[in-house]
Amino acid sequence: MNTAQAGDWILLLAQDRSAKRFFLRLTAGQQLHTHRGFIRHDEVIGQPYGSFMKSQLGQRFLLLQPSTFDFVMHVKRISQIIYPKEIGYILMRLNIVPGARVVEAGTGSGALTLALSRFVQPNGRVYSYEERDDMFQLARKNLDRGGVRDVVELKQRDIRAGFDERGVDALFLDVREPWLFIAQAHAALKSGGFFGALVPTTNQLSELLQEMETAGGWADIEVTEILMRKYKPVAERLRPEDRMIGHTGYLLFARAIERGTMIEPPGEQADGEATE
Amino acid sequence: MNTAQAGDWILLLAQDRSAKRFFLRLTAGQQLHTHRGFIRHDEVIGQPYGSFMKSQLGQRFLLLQPSTFDFVMHVKRISQIIYPKEIGYILMRLNIVPGARVVEAGTGSGALTLALSRFVQPNGRVYSYEERDDMFQLARKNLDRGGVRDVVELKQRDIRAGFDERGVDALFLDVREPWLFIAQAHAALKSGGFFGALVPTTNQLSELLQEMETAGGWADIEVTEILMRKYKPVAERLRPEDRMIGHTGYLLFARAIERGTMIEPPGEQADGEATE
Amino acid sequence: MNTAQAGDWILLLAQDRSAKRFFLRLTAGQQLHTHRGFIRHDEVIGQPYGSFMKSQLGQRFLLLQPSTFDFVMHVKRISQIIYPKEIGYILMRLNIVPGARVVEAGTGSGALTLALSRFVQPNGRVYSYEERDDMFQLARKNLDRGGVRDVVELKQRDIRAGFDERGVDALFLDVREPWLFIAQAHAALKSGGFFGALVPTTNQLSELLQEMETAGGWADIEVTEILMRKYKPVAERLRPEDRMIGHTGYLLFARAIERGTMIEPPGEQADGEATE
Amino acid sequence: MNTAQAGDWILLLAQDRSAKRFFLRLTAGQQLHTHRGFIRHDEVIGQPYGSFMKSQLGQRFLLLQPSTFDFVMHVKRISQIIYPKEIGYILMRLNIVPGARVVEAGTGSGALTLALSRFVQPNGRVYSYEERDDMFQLARKNLDRGGVRDVVELKQRDIRAGFDERGVDALFLDVREPWLFIAQAHAALKSGGFFGALVPTTNQLSELLQEMETAGGWADIEVTEILMRKYKPVAERLRPEDRMIGHTGYLLFARAIERGTMIEPPGEQADGEATE
Repeated sequence: MNTAQAGDWILLLAQDRSAKRFFLRLTAGQQLHTHRGFIRHDEVIGQPYGSFMKSQLGQRFLLLQPSTFDFVMHVKRISQIIYPKEIGYILMRLNIVPGARVVEAGTGSGALTLALSRFVQPNGRVYSYEERDDMFQLARKNLDRGGVRDVVELKQRDIRAGFDERGVDALFLDVREPWLFIAQAHAALKSGGFFGALVPTTNQLSELLQEMETAGGWADIEVTEILMRKYKPVAERLRPEDRMIGHTGYLLFARAIERGTMIEPPGEQADGEATE
Repeated sequence: MNTAQAGDWILLLAQDRSAKRFFLRLTAGQQLHTHRGFIRHDEVIGQPYGSFMKSQLGQRFLLLQPSTFDFVMHVKRISQIIYPKEIGYILMRLNIVPGARVVEAGTGSGALTLALSRFVQPNGRVYSYEERDDMFQLARKNLDRGGVRDVVELKQRDIRAGFDERGVDALFLDVREPWLFIAQAHAALKSGGFFGALVPTTNQLSELLQEMETAGGWADIEVTEILMRKYKPVAERLRPEDRMIGHTGYLLFARAIERGTMIEPPGEQADGEATE
Repeated sequence: MNTAQAGDWILLLAQDRSAKRFFLRLTAGQQLHTHRGFIRHDEVIGQPYGSFMKSQLGQRFLLLQPSTFDFVMHVKRISQIIYPKEIGYILMRLNIVPGARVVEAGTGSGALTLALSRFVQPNGRVYSYEERDDMFQLARKNLDRGGVRDVVELKQRDIRAGFDERGVDALFLDVREPWLFIAQAHAALKSGGFFGALVPTTNQLSELLQEMETAGGWADIEVTEILMRKYKPVAERLRPEDRMIGHTGYLLFARAIERGTMIEPPGEQADGEATE
Repeated sequence: MNTAQAGDWILLLAQDRSAKRFFLRLTAGQQLHTHRGFIRHDEVIGQPYGSFMKSQLGQRFLLLQPSTFDFVMHVKRISQIIYPKEIGYILMRLNIVPGARVVEAGTGSGALTLALSRFVQPNGRVYSYEERDDMFQLARKNLDRGGVRDVVELKQRDIRAGFDERGVDALFLDVREPWLFIAQAHAALKSGGFFGALVPTTNQLSELLQEMETAGGWADIEVTEILMRKYKPVAERLRPEDRMIGHTGYLLFARAIERGTMIEPPGEQADGEATE
């Protein structure tokens, strides 16, 4: 039986219209205080996941084990995080698999770092660079609670001087001026390695594309954005939610190849066109 | 040095406006025939990934090692496949991690199966059910070439009688009438386990939601769709492509909880609202 | 010279980061009170449109003549209104031109009524039905201030018994159960006339389509939705706004033809495919 | 009774899965040839709109009077046209109403010209500039068949030297480098007049915004794009179409104000926020 243990990070979902989600670590002797009454951690410890708790005011809460998704959505943040809709596609595009070696900069709040770490386990490794001290400390905390610290190597460092790693499988840039670090990224990647970047503005995107074209050494470039449209899950009144996220960022993916090689300008991409 | 070996599945990208992609298995003595001349496999074997080949007509091709993404896009198909934009989010929402045990039905062409298998490696397991014989044979072939057959258990079986597995971490339904298999899915999942489904029409979505509500035993339901908008990767003339995929399907995710429990109707979802 | 006159409805746009918009009627002797100081209407009267006013606290405001768009966005509302992104397309799809005779139900707050009225001027006519008294009174007020009351005939009436008009050019339904009024709509429209409806849920859409198919007498059906994505208008940091409207409603358009005629099921629509 | 007359432009919709649309002018003695047999124009002349014709092979066709929408979709084109989803919104944003005076450049194939003309009738006027001779001739033909030539003044002219008109209500630019004509546009518009432009790339959009900011004289700037998602109109299998238009262009709207006036940078736009 899968039961909640002291030390576990758990989710408690309020069973009312608010659908409020509490993300917390079970600690003997502590209490969770909510607008709907409090719950003693001791009453939760030992309960099976997927069952219901009651606050002393009678409010019911569903006890769930958080997923990687939940850990990502609940990282403590002092900056915009990368969201699961982008993370999922990044995982696919960077070919993240168990055992992969991945470089990332900047760490930010560690949302993507956490997901990458979960997916390269147990033998892979994530090297994550962050210059700002507040971010660095926060990411460490978020990764600790995600239980992935042994897979991640956090480095507080300016990346202008380059990355320490060589021959990595994949590399992702989530920095303000990614075009400044194109050469460093190329040097760290193995030939054929997977490159990705996220930028919020079209100007950054143009500058990044320009620099990659000028520098050479990149192929199979894809630029895309992902829009997620949620629906109210009501069978007899099915409809999208009134508001949605209109923008998080533009994603760029490419593969590192031998630098200096001349590549003709890319045409319209042939989606999934395959010949054997 | 990472070089192409006989037996490898490889990508050859035509370096012209067509950007045509050839996905093939290197076999000594064979040739790849294209509109731009032929290439002998023997000339490719031993070459480093990320380098260039030439056809006898002088057309250049880039040699790349395919990613999970590429394997998915190049599965041989006799049905609509699930695309990477959905697969990435499914991975996140079903909490697929190395070591996870996952049930899937139907296998179809095996595109999602292949991705799930890659991500649960090396110790996880994917149990995939498919009733139709042609699909079953095709999926086997696609999974073989993806090199993940040891992780997948393919079962040619009607799922009306239920799944063999119990206590699995996640379960995904890509079938025409998923509402018929809600009880079977619930029986296979561990308490708190992750459920997902994909349906193309709003009618199916309503029927599935209705059945889940009636049956009980499900919580934290999310209904969503993912739109991907690709851009022409040209720095000085940046713009979205003229045409895009308008629809693949609606995704539904939920968590299995103790059946019979009364759950109040869900409210507007509190995106990433977290309290510790 | 185009100057603001007593009695005019005007827009005052705060020239600060708030970009707050004040929509008001110029009345001699009155004052506009804002968080940024007050402005005497008398100082505005006689000023040219497109020039700047100052509040007594020194805050600058731009004086503009409101467009139909502005009147629509500023209708007083007690219900969801139809937005300009939908209105523009409705105008095109219903073939609203000067001189057209159009029926609409329900009037609601009168946002669409106002736009229709502006576009059928000077010789056209809009017949708008609304059952609820509060809506009816509100719409009258909104149409009065839009200066289009002579073009609109407001009728406070249940439409179950049908519309008074016959042979109208176009008819639009924005009611909860449009499928109940399909026959009435057909009776009011001329042969070949333009029908439109807006519904928020997929269930309503299915029910409406089902009823139209069963009843017969409709052709060239189009179902669509319109998404608008706004950008921050900043040259060097161009990007979509973070949040957007995710849903307003589904639009259905059709043309009324001889009832009872058997129409084969519609295929994929051949966009703009033309042969002369 | 509303019947088809010789000289009318009509629509014939094939009543089969192809849903093919024929747009033609009824001319005594002529025939329409289709893959489904031919139809003599003489048999159509005198028939009521909204009724059915049969080809000599027994294929049924629905006879409809084309709308402005249909005229726009069926203009003969040698360039990308502006589509109804954009046209509708442009009508709203430029405050096109019966009687308005509007300048447009370039005319292109005349799709927008045709719509503008229909909506300013009977007393308004559209001044449309086009430099290229082939476009100019084509637009004239398209406007002739749209029956709006008396409302439009076509001018074959480079607009670098400016527009002839002064004090116009609205002006729209659909040219490759709209930023070159900002001053000319401003000179033609009345104070408070409505400006619009359509550009396909983000680079053009940035350049246009930059120039407008530098030049001054513009306020209430909105940048937006409109996405239309069509659904298969089938009640019991409701779903979006597989493919959609991913991009036509970015729209920019602004109002002309006294040049030289200093305007603070615009903030997030306050959608429909109204105070009276």
